[in-house]
Amino acid sequence: MEGFFEARSVAVVGVSANPGNLAQAIVYNLLQFWFQGLVYLVGPHGGSFAGHKIYPRVRELPEPVDLAAILVPASAVPEVLRDCGEKGIKRAVLMSGGFRELGDERRALEEEVVGILGAYGIRMIGPNCLGIMNRRSGLAVPFMTFQATMPVGGVAVVSQSGGVAAMMVNCLEAENLGFSKFASIGNKLDVNEVDLLEYLVRDEETRIVFCYLEGIADGRRFMELASGSSKPVVLHKSNRGRAGSVIARSHSASLSADDRVLDAALRQSGVLRVFDQREAMTAIKGLVLPPMRGNRLAVVSRSGGHAVMAADAADDLGFELPPFPESLLRTVQERSRARVIRFHNPLDLGDLFDMPLYHAVADETLARDDIDGLLFIHNYQGVFEQEASRQVIAGLGSLIEKHRKPLAVCVFTTKPELDRTREKSHFPIFTDPREALLALAGNREHHRERPAPFSHVRPPDVFPDRVKTLLDGLPEGPIGAGVLGEILSAYGLFPVPWRQADSMEDALAAARDLGYPVVLKTARPEVIHKSEVRGVRLNLADEPSVREAYEDLRRRLGPRVLVQETAAPGVEWFLGGRQDPNFGPVLVTGLGGIYVEVFRETALRVGPVSSAQADRMLDECKASAILGGIRGRDPLDRRALVDMAVRASWLLHDFPEIRELDLNPVGVFPDGCRALDWRAVKGPVP
Amino acid sequence: MEGFFEARSVAVVGVSANPGNLAQAIVYNLLQFWFQGLVYLVGPHGGSFAGHKIYPRVRELPEPVDLAAILVPASAVPEVLRDCGEKGIKRAVLMSGGFRELGDERRALEEEVVGILGAYGIRMIGPNCLGIMNRRSGLAVPFMTFQATMPVGGVAVVSQSGGVAAMMVNCLEAENLGFSKFASIGNKLDVNEVDLLEYLVRDEETRIVFCYLEGIADGRRFMELASGSSKPVVLHKSNRGRAGSVIARSHSASLSADDRVLDAALRQSGVLRVFDQREAMTAIKGLVLPPMRGNRLAVVSRSGGHAVMAADAADDLGFELPPFPESLLRTVQERSRARVIRFHNPLDLGDLFDMPLYHAVADETLARDDIDGLLFIHNYQGVFEQEASRQVIAGLGSLIEKHRKPLAVCVFTTKPELDRTREKSHFPIFTDPREALLALAGNREHHRERPAPFSHVRPPDVFPDRVKTLLDGLPEGPIGAGVLGEILSAYGLFPVPWRQADSMEDALAAARDLGYPVVLKTARPEVIHKSEVRGVRLNLADEPSVREAYEDLRRRLGPRVLVQETAAPGVEWFLGGRQDPNFGPVLVTGLGGIYVEVFRETALRVGPVSSAQADRMLDECKASAILGGIRGRDPLDRRALVDMAVRASWLLHDFPEIRELDLNPVGVFPDGCRALDWRAVKGPVP
Repeated sequence: MEGFFEARSVAVVGVSANPGNLAQAIVYNLLQFWFQGLVYLVGPHGGSFAGHKIYPRVRELPEPVDLAAILVPASAVPEVLRDCGEKGIKRAVLMSGGFRELGDERRALEEEVVGILGAYGIRMIGPNCLGIMNRRSGLAVPFMTFQATMPVGGVAVVSQSGGVAAMMVNCLEAENLGFSKFASIGNKLDVNEVDLLEYLVRDEETRIVFCYLEGIADGRRFMELASGSSKPVVLHKSNRGRAGSVIARSHSASLSADDRVLDAALRQSGVLRVFDQREAMTAIKGLVLPPMRGNRLAVVSRSGGHAVMAADAADDLGFELPPFPESLLRTVQERSRARVIRFHNPLDLGDLFDMPLYHAVADETLARDDIDGLLFIHNYQGVFEQEASRQVIAGLGSLIEKHRKPLAVCVFTTKPELDRTREKSHFPIFTDPREALLALAGNREHHRERPAPFSHVRPPDVFPDRVKTLLDGLPEGPIGAGVLGEILSAYGLFPVPWRQADSMEDALAAARDLGYPVVLKTARPEVIHKSEVRGVRLNLADEPSVREAYEDLRRRLGPRVLVQETAAPGVEWFLGGRQDPNFGPVLVTGLGGIYVEVFRETALRVGPVSSAQADRMLDECKASAILGGIRGRDPLDRRALVDMAVRASWLLHDFPEIRELDLNPVGVFPDGCRALDWRAVKGPVP
Repeated sequence: MEGFFEARSVAVVGVSANPGNLAQAIVYNLLQFWFQGLVYLVGPHGGSFAGHKIYPRVRELPEPVDLAAILVPASAVPEVLRDCGEKGIKRAVLMSGGFRELGDERRALEEEVVGILGAYGIRMIGPNCLGIMNRRSGLAVPFMTFQATMPVGGVAVVSQSGGVAAMMVNCLEAENLGFSKFASIGNKLDVNEVDLLEYLVRDEETRIVFCYLEGIADGRRFMELASGSSKPVVLHKSNRGRAGSVIARSHSASLSADDRVLDAALRQSGVLRVFDQREAMTAIKGLVLPPMRGNRLAVVSRSGGHAVMAADAADDLGFELPPFPESLLRTVQERSRARVIRFHNPLDLGDLFDMPLYHAVADETLARDDIDGLLFIHNYQGVFEQEASRQVIAGLGSLIEKHRKPLAVCVFTTKPELDRTREKSHFPIFTDPREALLALAGNREHHRERPAPFSHVRPPDVFPDRVKTLLDGLPEGPIGAGVLGEILSAYGLFPVPWRQADSMEDALAAARDLGYPVVLKTARPEVIHKSEVRGVRLNLADEPSVREAYEDLRRRLGPRVLVQETAAPGVEWFLGGRQDPNFGPVLVTGLGGIYVEVFRETALRVGPVSSAQADRMLDECKASAILGGIRGRDPLDRRALVDMAVRASWLLHDFPEIRELDLNPVGVFPDGCRALDWRAVKGPVP
């Protein structure tokens, strides 16, 4: 990626001197940002623009360049790229639209492009993108004009949409923040967000990575990169719903991933997920502050109403509000002329008009060992208090440097005064207590222990070789209950004791062997919901009942049945999983039985999971209260269920050909747990 | 209230010529806003300020005034108010702090003030407030300086916090919107939000009422006023959580109401509830647009990324996105030189640089009968497109007037350009597709059928006289199961057939009468959770079982029992309610049994409710899927359950002395439903 961002010479391809030529904006940007390198222009009509000669073809350039920025009609792209290859140019930013975003009939053109890239060893960003920028070097090739007025900053912007990337730059500038690198990546035909993330986590100028994506190319790699870096990654993944995915297909040719899987994957990798631009800006403003290393928050406010709002938000976001110490209260009380202030946290400074005291309160509070962060809310309307207020706010900035703790400054004033304050401040200015605390909460989340997204410790007593042998012999489609029972047992996922039987005699022998009462079920693999076809017969207490039941099942559903031991009373849980095309094995668990359908309350993780992760999954299910024993019932064996979840996740991880797995229900008992019904499908990852 | 806002003469009490005197800001505001009336100043040290003589006492004023604006130390307030009374002044705004917000020891002072108001017939806003403003007349008495630069507007601002009120004025101004009336109401010792709401819904200059409250004085009256007016009411109620309520008590002396009750009450009355200032502004910006009379939305965007975001938000907010007609698509296609656009709704205009066409697309779209509103997203960076973009945006404003449909204009550009756009536009400018659609969703909610917050139709066959007789004889505390059974039956809330028995003989006779098997329960009223004390004996199939069970219950819990018929199989539901001090009777319903504890999924309404409302309550419970029949089970009698909910709400409404009522479980059967256990407490409303 350095080849793109550190390019020292650029050819802008597609320029003409005609008004309305879009590539002129690229030249304009390179001039505006004072690009520290050579610029060549290329366009079939020749002539000149902005003092530069326009060469008719890339191959006629006097020397090779580091980067070609291409904005020509789609049909002309192959020739231009071949020219680049012949000329020895190894990096291209292809901004032209007219590829797969217009429909599948343009795939052939894309394939031709991919072939050319491969033949000449060219790496390419695009097509259908806005271009890239390196704020420091002045490399700025978007075909939409930017003004180089924003500061150099630490936020890298990676976006599948050029419009969103441009908006983010404007938002950063409005907050007096700046960007380091900018990449609009469009259709991601070659370079994708994973390539860029790999580069940006090692880029010294980048402190925070913001990504806007409509689809993720390699979910697992993205998780590894994000979780492996101490740099915060803020992700806005759109294209979540039904309506969105229609556009996204046409816009940037991405398939919609299952949003819940994505959500789990991002939490597992410590990525801060945001759902709109405001949330993105709030997260970024929080992350430019020093780390919030704990949960203990102080709030100081000049307005009681804002103090109450802050208290509500602190409550929602799980902050603790330790009391203010007596000493501080005495100081304040001595200086408070109106004495209308009471001393809780949030501290309401009321109509105390003593600006130097505000500074002292903030200073003393940040110095406390039992405070991890401070929200300072100041409101003023100007005229009588303008100068003093400006000084207070400027002073707060110095406290951030002094204490290296996050101090969120929230200012309420008139718009012109607020604009001025933002311009003069080298720290974020918030305009709502909730926004400020959301920012601190994001900061706090990021500075918790770094996540370990997947487990790397396979549980004991699993026998992959045995499973491999069993699976290899099977056709694609539903796996028979008998062989699946063996597969599960090989990973320590023990079903309730069972025998497969293909005749009346076998069934009776199995029932004797297991002990009455028994359960008989059809073992026909195509049957997905056994109870719907009356394929399950419970509570068969003696030989005549088994005879009658077997005959019934044989007649309707075929001779192969499972005979199962009748399970002890317990709770019915759900444990299942599937292969996700982006993220690999996914594990799902929750209450089973009819309530799983009614409440649909499940926890989900990208696997394989550790015991600790599986335990947290259960915590996320309200129904896990039942496992602990409710209304005087015995507690159930949660540890056994956790172990089963871990094993199921490893089975799915080790065998991607197991496309879906359902253990439903799993009977959870006071001592142990057992799958009571099991189902799986073999097949390629969708 | 007109007496306050239409005052033609004002005495500012508490002015001195000393620098730092807070009441000077009041005088400054009256001058800034060009108050159309007479101003007198009062302060004990005399002298003059801003060209006005300062009279030492109110009683020395040359003539009575319409309004006294008072900012003197709390201890001096009684004397000032008495002076006002003697002088014949009937309206006061008391801004001084130092009352109950400092603690209960200041209640005596408040009582003294209330006494004086009563004695002289003075109406008062405050204490501990920032004052009031009438934008049109220039009556502006806050002691914080405001600048009269914002336009005259249609938004009334009522706030318990002065700081929040001031912030709202700044926010309105920043969006080029203005206020009509402004009232900071502080401790609400006399005038409260209900008085103001009553006035503002009939005030011709007010189109939208915004309230910031930390507590609500008369919840039911508030509901009636809000639901009875076609003017939108936007409410930010803070002080929701544990931490907030500590401050709120000290700040503005309000008790924290149960937030779920409040939420239900506001939805029932059509109040738009917001949770922070941004949401408030979004709602207000949506409400200044013409009504969104349906759900059918068109989105036109110049950036594909923003189109995808808009589609996500439309999905979340339940908007339909009808396709664009062929005719429009042809027009666009003919003019699109790059032809890289595909035609879904959202319509992505891509890099189509044809500004007049944008206007035509918006115009044609708003003219369609199958479109209720439009979101138009425009992004530009200036330089090459600035002038054309400005024209497009200005043109969109005229389309709002032309079509009288809501057109939300979302603009992405640089900050200076955005500021300029806001300043020049007489319609709201949005800066995020989600914000714009939230605004349209709020508008749509407001213009749905006006809500009828309570039912006014008592169900048939309820016998209040009978209940009154039964209740009057009871002491406060838990109501005995026997008499409660009679009370319930008098409102058609029939329990499962039951008899009360005080001896073995009675119990056996009752069992014979009801038919075996029966249930025996303790009827001791103090027992709340009968199963916890083993106070319920199920499935008593014959006389010996009843004998044994009765003897056991008698020995441990006393001789009085209920004998009940054994209910048919069904689902256990929960139906209950209580009296809320602010809102009156509250009805709660949801799945019963252990899952009510686990999932805590209930629906809530302020009662009494109609059948339609009770039906919607069931819809809100996911568990109501079970009532419809699940996995082949029979559907259960939802109508009977709805009827029972209506009756329970009327019982609570008619008898506020029934402080709590639990029918838990209610057995719901394929044919009918019956309370299987019932419990209530008599007592005063908390």
